[in-house]
Amino acid sequence: MSANVRVAFLGLGAMGLPMAEHVLAAGFPLTVWNRTAAKADALVTAGAARAQTPRDAAAAADVVLLCLPTQDEVRDILTRADGVLAGLGAGKTIVDTSTIDPSASQQLIASCAERGIEMLEAPLSGGTIGAKSGALTMMIGGDAAVLERVRPVLESMAKNIFHVGGPGMGQTLKLCNQMIAGAQTIALAEAYALLHAAGVDAKLATDVFAVSTANCVAIQQRVPVPGVQPAGPASNEWRPGFATEWMAKDLFLALQFARSLDVPVAQNAANLQCFEQSMQAGYRKLDQSVFGKVLIDRIDAHARER
Amino acid sequence: MSANVRVAFLGLGAMGLPMAEHVLAAGFPLTVWNRTAAKADALVTAGAARAQTPRDAAAAADVVLLCLPTQDEVRDILTRADGVLAGLGAGKTIVDTSTIDPSASQQLIASCAERGIEMLEAPLSGGTIGAKSGALTMMIGGDAAVLERVRPVLESMAKNIFHVGGPGMGQTLKLCNQMIAGAQTIALAEAYALLHAAGVDAKLATDVFAVSTANCVAIQQRVPVPGVQPAGPASNEWRPGFATEWMAKDLFLALQFARSLDVPVAQNAANLQCFEQSMQAGYRKLDQSVFGKVLIDRIDAHARER
Amino acid sequence: MSANVRVAFLGLGAMGLPMAEHVLAAGFPLTVWNRTAAKADALVTAGAARAQTPRDAAAAADVVLLCLPTQDEVRDILTRADGVLAGLGAGKTIVDTSTIDPSASQQLIASCAERGIEMLEAPLSGGTIGAKSGALTMMIGGDAAVLERVRPVLESMAKNIFHVGGPGMGQTLKLCNQMIAGAQTIALAEAYALLHAAGVDAKLATDVFAVSTANCVAIQQRVPVPGVQPAGPASNEWRPGFATEWMAKDLFLALQFARSLDVPVAQNAANLQCFEQSMQAGYRKLDQSVFGKVLIDRIDAHARER
Amino acid sequence: MSANVRVAFLGLGAMGLPMAEHVLAAGFPLTVWNRTAAKADALVTAGAARAQTPRDAAAAADVVLLCLPTQDEVRDILTRADGVLAGLGAGKTIVDTSTIDPSASQQLIASCAERGIEMLEAPLSGGTIGAKSGALTMMIGGDAAVLERVRPVLESMAKNIFHVGGPGMGQTLKLCNQMIAGAQTIALAEAYALLHAAGVDAKLATDVFAVSTANCVAIQQRVPVPGVQPAGPASNEWRPGFATEWMAKDLFLALQFARSLDVPVAQNAANLQCFEQSMQAGYRKLDQSVFGKVLIDRIDAHARER
Repeated sequence: MSANVRVAFLGLGAMGLPMAEHVLAAGFPLTVWNRTAAKADALVTAGAARAQTPRDAAAAADVVLLCLPTQDEVRDILTRADGVLAGLGAGKTIVDTSTIDPSASQQLIASCAERGIEMLEAPLSGGTIGAKSGALTMMIGGDAAVLERVRPVLESMAKNIFHVGGPGMGQTLKLCNQMIAGAQTIALAEAYALLHAAGVDAKLATDVFAVSTANCVAIQQRVPVPGVQPAGPASNEWRPGFATEWMAKDLFLALQFARSLDVPVAQNAANLQCFEQSMQAGYRKLDQSVFGKVLIDRIDAHARER
Repeated sequence: MSANVRVAFLGLGAMGLPMAEHVLAAGFPLTVWNRTAAKADALVTAGAARAQTPRDAAAAADVVLLCLPTQDEVRDILTRADGVLAGLGAGKTIVDTSTIDPSASQQLIASCAERGIEMLEAPLSGGTIGAKSGALTMMIGGDAAVLERVRPVLESMAKNIFHVGGPGMGQTLKLCNQMIAGAQTIALAEAYALLHAAGVDAKLATDVFAVSTANCVAIQQRVPVPGVQPAGPASNEWRPGFATEWMAKDLFLALQFARSLDVPVAQNAANLQCFEQSMQAGYRKLDQSVFGKVLIDRIDAHARER
Repeated sequence: MSANVRVAFLGLGAMGLPMAEHVLAAGFPLTVWNRTAAKADALVTAGAARAQTPRDAAAAADVVLLCLPTQDEVRDILTRADGVLAGLGAGKTIVDTSTIDPSASQQLIASCAERGIEMLEAPLSGGTIGAKSGALTMMIGGDAAVLERVRPVLESMAKNIFHVGGPGMGQTLKLCNQMIAGAQTIALAEAYALLHAAGVDAKLATDVFAVSTANCVAIQQRVPVPGVQPAGPASNEWRPGFATEWMAKDLFLALQFARSLDVPVAQNAANLQCFEQSMQAGYRKLDQSVFGKVLIDRIDAHARER
Repeated sequence: MSANVRVAFLGLGAMGLPMAEHVLAAGFPLTVWNRTAAKADALVTAGAARAQTPRDAAAAADVVLLCLPTQDEVRDILTRADGVLAGLGAGKTIVDTSTIDPSASQQLIASCAERGIEMLEAPLSGGTIGAKSGALTMMIGGDAAVLERVRPVLESMAKNIFHVGGPGMGQTLKLCNQMIAGAQTIALAEAYALLHAAGVDAKLATDVFAVSTANCVAIQQRVPVPGVQPAGPASNEWRPGFATEWMAKDLFLALQFARSLDVPVAQNAANLQCFEQSMQAGYRKLDQSVFGKVLIDRIDAHARER
C-alpha cells in the first residue's frame, strides 16, 4: 500500500484530530468529516479535503478510519442514509479505532462483510498524549491479511500494532486494559487519600512507589495530588487526559461483556461505582484521576468540622 | 559508621536470610539468631556468630535488625525475658524491617526511646528477588539523624533508602504500597479470567498490556497464567514471591489503619476479600497472584459442565 | 368497568399463567396467546379463547395484559407485524406487568399514547406464590385515571395495587425493591456460610433471626440451607421461586438506571457480581437463594482438603 | 433461682440502664456500678445499692451482668486490680451481654472456668427500644445448665432467650445478625437515594416495600428519609437507635472473625466501608441509618451545581 492510498477520517475529537494529522503528514491523500465541521479547519488548511457527509468522505477513500465515542455513534455513522456504507464500495476497508462492545463490533464487522467491505476493529491505548506523538498502541481484531494491507496507514499513527485475533478480540483486550488501568486509578485514589489523612508527603510517596511494587502507569502519569507531577492532570486542573465519563463507559462495557460470558468481575464493578461518584460530583469531563480529589476533599471537609 | 559497627540480625526467613548475607558480605561483624536455628547454619559457616537468644544477639551488637512476619512476633522478640531489650544498652539502635501496624510501630518506637534506645521502622519493597539482589526499597520512619548513622548497614541490603517521616510514616507508606500492588494483582486476575473466557491469547495480551496504560509491576512480574513468564510464579507452581497470606495480612492492616483515621477504602476491602478466597481455596502459602488461578479454574469447571 | 370488559393475556410463563387463571376465574372474557401455544391449553379448556397472534388477541380485547421476561420481548410483541399495536384500536389499554428499564417503559408508553392507546406499567412483587394465590403487589406507573378504569381487572390478580407516579416510576420502584431483596439474599448467603464454618445450627439461627433485627422476607422464605424451611427453595432442590437469572437481570437494570442518574450504588454492584457467580456455577435457572449453596460448597471443598 | 438471687449490673449505658431497671423491677436485689457514677443515681433512688468498684459489686452478687461497648472494656473490667474477678467467688456466674469477638469471648469464658466461675455470653438484639420494653432477644453461648440457673434473671430483661451452643457461638450468631441488619441499612440507603434522584415519593415507596419482597426490619424501623416514620431515627435528627460506630464495630468484628475461618464476606466488607463513610462525614454517634442521608446529600449537592 503506497502513500497514494486514499484515506477518510471520521471523528475529529481529542484523539481523532491528532491522529488524522499524522495520516496527512505521512503523505496519504486525506478526506475528513466531523459532526462539528469547524474542528476540521486546520486539517483542511494543511491540505485535507472536507466532505459534507460520511457518505461523501467514504466515496473518496480506499480506507475509512473511525474514531467515535460510543457504539451508537459508530452504528449511526455507518448505516444512516448519508452514512459510510452508502458511499463505500465493495473491496474497500473500514478501520474502527473506537472502543465499543465486542459483540457489537462482531456484528458490525459481519454486516460489512456481507456487503464485501472489510472492517477491522482497532481500539487504542495511549490517550491524547500518545495520539499527539504518534505513539499509540493498537489492538486489532479481524482479518490479519487486511491488517497487512492497511498497516502503512496505521503506522503513521501508532507505534505498536498488535493483531490480537478475530473480530471482537481487539475490543475484548482493550476492555481488559481499561479494567487494569481503572483499577490503578482507584487504588491510587485510596492510597493517596490515606497518605493525606496520615500526613505523609505525596511527592515523596510517589518517589518511593516508583521504585516499589506499586509502580504502574498511573504512578508515572496520574498521581491525584496537584503539584506532584507538573505535566499530570492533577497539576493542570484535571484537564484530561482521559475523561472520567470515558473510563466509566469502558468499565461499564467490560462489566456487560463479562456478564455475557458469566464471568464475575467484582473489583471492576466496585471501580465503576467509584467513577460514578466522580460523575455525581460533577467531574464527568475531568481526567479519570479526579476520583482522588473526591476522596481527599471528603477528608478535608471532615477535618474542618472537628 | 565504619565496617566495624557490630550488627545483629534476627529473623532469617525468605527475606531475612539473603538480607543478612548482604550485611555479612559487606564486612560488618554479624551475630544472628532465628527461632529455627538451622536456618542460620550457612551464615555461621560464612563467618557469622550464632546467638542462643535474642538477648545475647543484642548484647553483641550496635545495631539490631529485625525481619519478622507480624507485630506479635516483633513485640515478643523485643520484650520477652530473653528478648532484645534485655540485652541492648542505651544508645544502641534497632531497625525493624517488618511490616506492621503504624500505631503499633509508633508505640514500640516510643517505648524504646524511654530506655534510651533508638528505633527505626524500615519496611521493604522488592520481595525475595530484591532481597537476594540487594536491591530492596526501604521506607524509613523515625529520626533522620539515626538513619544517617545506620545508613551504611542499610545500604548493604537496599538500593533505595527513603526517609519518609516520623514513626509510623514508613509503615503507612508501606501499607499504601501494598494497597496499590494488591489492586494490580486482583485487576490482573479479573482481566486474564475474562481473556481466558473470551479466548484471547494470554502471552499476546501481556505484550500489549506492557506498552499500554495497563502496564505495572504485576504485568512485568506476575501474570497469572502458566507459561507466559518463565520466571514468574504462575510458571513455577505459584512458588512465592510473596505469599497470599502476607498480602492478606498487609491489606488487613491497611484496612484497620484506614479505619482508625475514618478513611473509607472500598476497593481495598474488596481486594482483601479476593485474597481471602485464595486462602479459602487452600492457597495461603502460594504467591498472591494465585487468585488468577482461582478465577480461571471456576471458568473451566463451568465449561466442563455445559 | 364491569365483568364484560374483554381481556387479552400475553405471556403465560410461571407468573403469567396463574395470573391469567385469576382473570378468567373473576369472570372476564379472556383471550390468550403464548409463544409456546401448549401452555394455554388448560386455560382454553377452562373457557378462554386462543389467539394465533398477539394482533388477534389484541383485536379481541379492551385491555391487553403483558407478562414477559425482558424489554426486548415487550417491544417485539408490541411492534412486530402481527403484534399488539397492529390489532389494538385507539382508546384501548395495555397493562405491562413485566420488569423493564424505566426509560424503555417511558418510551413505550409515549409511543402508545401517540396512537391513542393508554399504557400502564405494572411490575409485580410476590413471585409465583403470590401469582398463584392472587396476592401480588402491583407498582403502577402511568395515568391514575386509566388505573381506575382497569382496576377491577387488576384486582382479580393483585392484593395490593399502588399508583406510584407517572411512566417509569413503577419500574423505578420495582428495581429498588429488587435491590433490597437481592441484598437480603446475598447477606443471608454470607451469614449462613459463616455460621456453617463456625458450626452454628442453621435452624436455630433462623429462629433467632426471625425475632431479631436481621428479620426480613428472605429470612422468612429463602434460608439457603436445605431442611430449615420445608417449603423453601433450599429444601426443594432450589426450584424457583425467582430464578437467579431474573434477579441478575433486575439488578443489572437497576445499575444501568442508577448510572443514567449519576447515582453510585456500590452494594448493588457487589450483589450483582455475586449472582453472576451463581450463574457461572451453572445455577442460572435455580432460585436466587442458591448463592448460599455456592458459598457453603466452597467451605466444604476446602474442609475436605485439609 | 428465686428472687433473692443477688445481681450486680456493670455498664449502665443506653442499653444497660433500662436492662438494670427491669432486673430491679423484677425484685432481684441489685448492686450497680458504672464508670460515670451519676448514671446510677436513678437506680439507687429506686432501691439499688451502689458499688465503688467492679470488685465490690461482684462481691455482693451471685450473678454479675456486663453490658459494655468493646472487648477491651470487658477484659479490663474483669481483670483489673479492683475488677470483677478480684471480688467474685467460685461457683458464681457472669453473664456478658456485650458484643465482642467470638474468640475473645471463648478465651474469657475459659479463663473464668479456671477460677471456678461460670460465664455465659449473651449478646442482644432489639436495641434501646427492646431494652426499654424488656423485649430483647438474647443469643446465649456457654453451658446450657448454667443458662437454666440464671434464666429467671435474664427473663426479666429479654423476651426471647436462645441457647445457641458453646462458648463463642452466641457471639458468632450475633455478628451474623449484624451482617444481615447492616446489609439492610446499606441497601435501603442506596434504594432511597435512587428513588430520591428519580423523584419517587419515599412514603409511598415505603408502603409498597412493606408488602413486597423488600420488607425487613429496616423498612419497618429505619427508612432513611425524614418524615416517613415519625418514630424513626430519620425523623428525630438521627438519634440512635443504634449508633453508626457500633454497627461499624460489629461489622469489623464479623470481618475479622470470618477471616479467622477463611470465609470471604465481600458484601459485608463493602457495607463496612459504607458505614466508614458515615463516620468520615462526622456522623459516628448518629443512628446507623444516617448513611442514607450521606448518599442523598450528595445527590442534592450535585443537583444544586447543575
